[in-house]
Amino acid sequence: MKIHGKPFRTIWLAADGAGVEIIDQTRLPHDFVVRRLDSLEQAEQAIREMWVRGAPLIGVAAAYGMALALRDDASDGRMEEAYRRLFATRPTAVNLRWALDDMRQRLAGLAPPRRLAEAYRRAGQIADEDVAMNAAIGRHGAEILDDLWRVRKAAGARRLNVLTHCNAGWLATVDWGTALAPIYKAHEDGIPLHVWVDETRPRNQGASLTACEFDWQGLDHTVVVDNAGGHLMQHGLVDVCIVGTDRTTAAGDVCNKIGTYLKALAARDNGVPFYVGLPGPTIDWTIEDGVRDIPIEERDPGEVTHIQGRSASGDRVTVQLTPDGSPAVNYGFDVTPARLVTGLVTERGVCQASRAGLLSLYPEKRSHV
Amino acid sequence: MKIHGKPFRTIWLAADGAGVEIIDQTRLPHDFVVRRLDSLEQAEQAIREMWVRGAPLIGVAAAYGMALALRDDASDGRMEEAYRRLFATRPTAVNLRWALDDMRQRLAGLAPPRRLAEAYRRAGQIADEDVAMNAAIGRHGAEILDDLWRVRKAAGARRLNVLTHCNAGWLATVDWGTALAPIYKAHEDGIPLHVWVDETRPRNQGASLTACEFDWQGLDHTVVVDNAGGHLMQHGLVDVCIVGTDRTTAAGDVCNKIGTYLKALAARDNGVPFYVGLPGPTIDWTIEDGVRDIPIEERDPGEVTHIQGRSASGDRVTVQLTPDGSPAVNYGFDVTPARLVTGLVTERGVCQASRAGLLSLYPEKRSHV
Repeated sequence: MKIHGKPFRTIWLAADGAGVEIIDQTRLPHDFVVRRLDSLEQAEQAIREMWVRGAPLIGVAAAYGMALALRDDASDGRMEEAYRRLFATRPTAVNLRWALDDMRQRLAGLAPPRRLAEAYRRAGQIADEDVAMNAAIGRHGAEILDDLWRVRKAAGARRLNVLTHCNAGWLATVDWGTALAPIYKAHEDGIPLHVWVDETRPRNQGASLTACEFDWQGLDHTVVVDNAGGHLMQHGLVDVCIVGTDRTTAAGDVCNKIGTYLKALAARDNGVPFYVGLPGPTIDWTIEDGVRDIPIEERDPGEVTHIQGRSASGDRVTVQLTPDGSPAVNYGFDVTPARLVTGLVTERGVCQASRAGLLSLYPEKRSHV
Repeated sequence: MKIHGKPFRTIWLAADGAGVEIIDQTRLPHDFVVRRLDSLEQAEQAIREMWVRGAPLIGVAAAYGMALALRDDASDGRMEEAYRRLFATRPTAVNLRWALDDMRQRLAGLAPPRRLAEAYRRAGQIADEDVAMNAAIGRHGAEILDDLWRVRKAAGARRLNVLTHCNAGWLATVDWGTALAPIYKAHEDGIPLHVWVDETRPRNQGASLTACEFDWQGLDHTVVVDNAGGHLMQHGLVDVCIVGTDRTTAAGDVCNKIGTYLKALAARDNGVPFYVGLPGPTIDWTIEDGVRDIPIEERDPGEVTHIQGRSASGDRVTVQLTPDGSPAVNYGFDVTPARLVTGLVTERGVCQASRAGLLSLYPEKRSHV
């Protein structure tokens, strides 16, 4: 995607072919800072301190981190050390483990002198595969938006109103995004879109990252508090919802950022279609009932009681919102039952949020469920 | 209610019997500041800038504002000017109009020299009536909590979990509160309560005011982001929701702080009872369909893009949350349709959220609908 007209990915090989460059996402939306990573230590820091975030991007960053680790020493010992240290940065991220396992398996079979070049090559390939998958989600999802727009346009509408929650955009991936890929593709196709961006408390990924993406891209959007979506839908101001997912069950239940379920309820109550964009690897074929079986991460209550922003003088400042005597709790995700999901938009096409729907796109998983 | 053991109301006549004193609620939860109002302008400012807020308290503040306006000039012209200016401060608030109509009607029949004393007397009486009304809401609502607690206790629960949105506590009224009056009464009765407090973006009245009230009162509570309620209800962590209302239609639709509707949807989806506490005067007998007929106030988008809190050094600091290029919109309220409301808790008792239910408690309104 573009930032003020210049094409970017979230992670790329530096011009010298040795270092890796990333956008430091902790500095968004107020500062655009590119950081260069030259060592295992720096890659660890980038993941642990969330300069890069989003499951797909974390995986790619870890793969490049493995390459950086091998620059001076491509021995088995160094490879194991890199695996262990990178895995420890965000141990719950499924893509992180997947990418590290993939790298280790490929590199272990090579003689050490050949490992470094292969590590860079494979990390780049993982990045490209992510881009291709998300571009495909974009194409399939854009067809839905195109169909909706034909209907709305015929009814006299001047724009198609989309609502999204959290950030499932290109900043969470290498490029395109998952939930936002259809929006970018439809925007490229000339459909006049306007996106309602849920701010997404407590970490405000909507207000800071999704809004930032749309601002860079020149895509018409409006930030709203998470409380507003029901009202917007009651008044016909939302034509379709699209969100991402961290984990999708074999039955089509969707575990996504806390608050997604509330928007899905409002969509159902107002006849608004509710779609989820996801790459196949985020489907967990081992679980059916998401509400019952997906443990919900409890994060630092400080994310609820405090918030960071830019002060009038331009400094990044953290302020406290709650009384000193009031405790808080911070659930990271919730589960939207499949019955509230209109369709799942994957790299292989769109399907119903059900076991039958998913198996129609991923028939090779039939033995798993 | 008490603040660290000392009884307070939210508005009271100053010791000199001329000025009016209020708690400046924009300074909570971090600073406790009492302000004195001596003029119509100050009363307007107090309401418009939300030093006082909450429908019942706004009504009382407007009544006192009328008295303050008449201090130098008790003519018909001045009274009309005060009516018009005070009404314009928060046009959505039905209590504001009710209090102003009541004041004007009583004062218009008096010769100007007698108006000032009557204005102070009647404003004080409206305040006392509000306290009595909310105490009655508390008694009726506490019976519901008591019944729920018997059932939960028999099932082995150690506490009754309540969820509330925004602040319909004593800070929103003169004393007791509307939605929170039943909680305070049940707490006094010894029921072991725990309240989930929605932070209530964008103005964070939950995180700042409701949390503050419970902290002062020693009532067990936890602050959550507005996104969390659905997850809590899915997991059986909420036994009952109680919220307030700014305006209730003759059919039982409830216009309350933006986001209330989303919680009502989640309550319905999970079989959690959803009650609304309201004093009779917030019923607007002239409308039926709240979604269609209640205009929703759009407030300053700056409340979405910026937030105020206490910095590490103890200063009140406002920080920007969104990119410079991203617009925001700020709807103040939404409408929860009567079909999602389990019951309305009024000063006259509890009824179904329907025309028939309301008329059973307010039979004198039968001619209105």
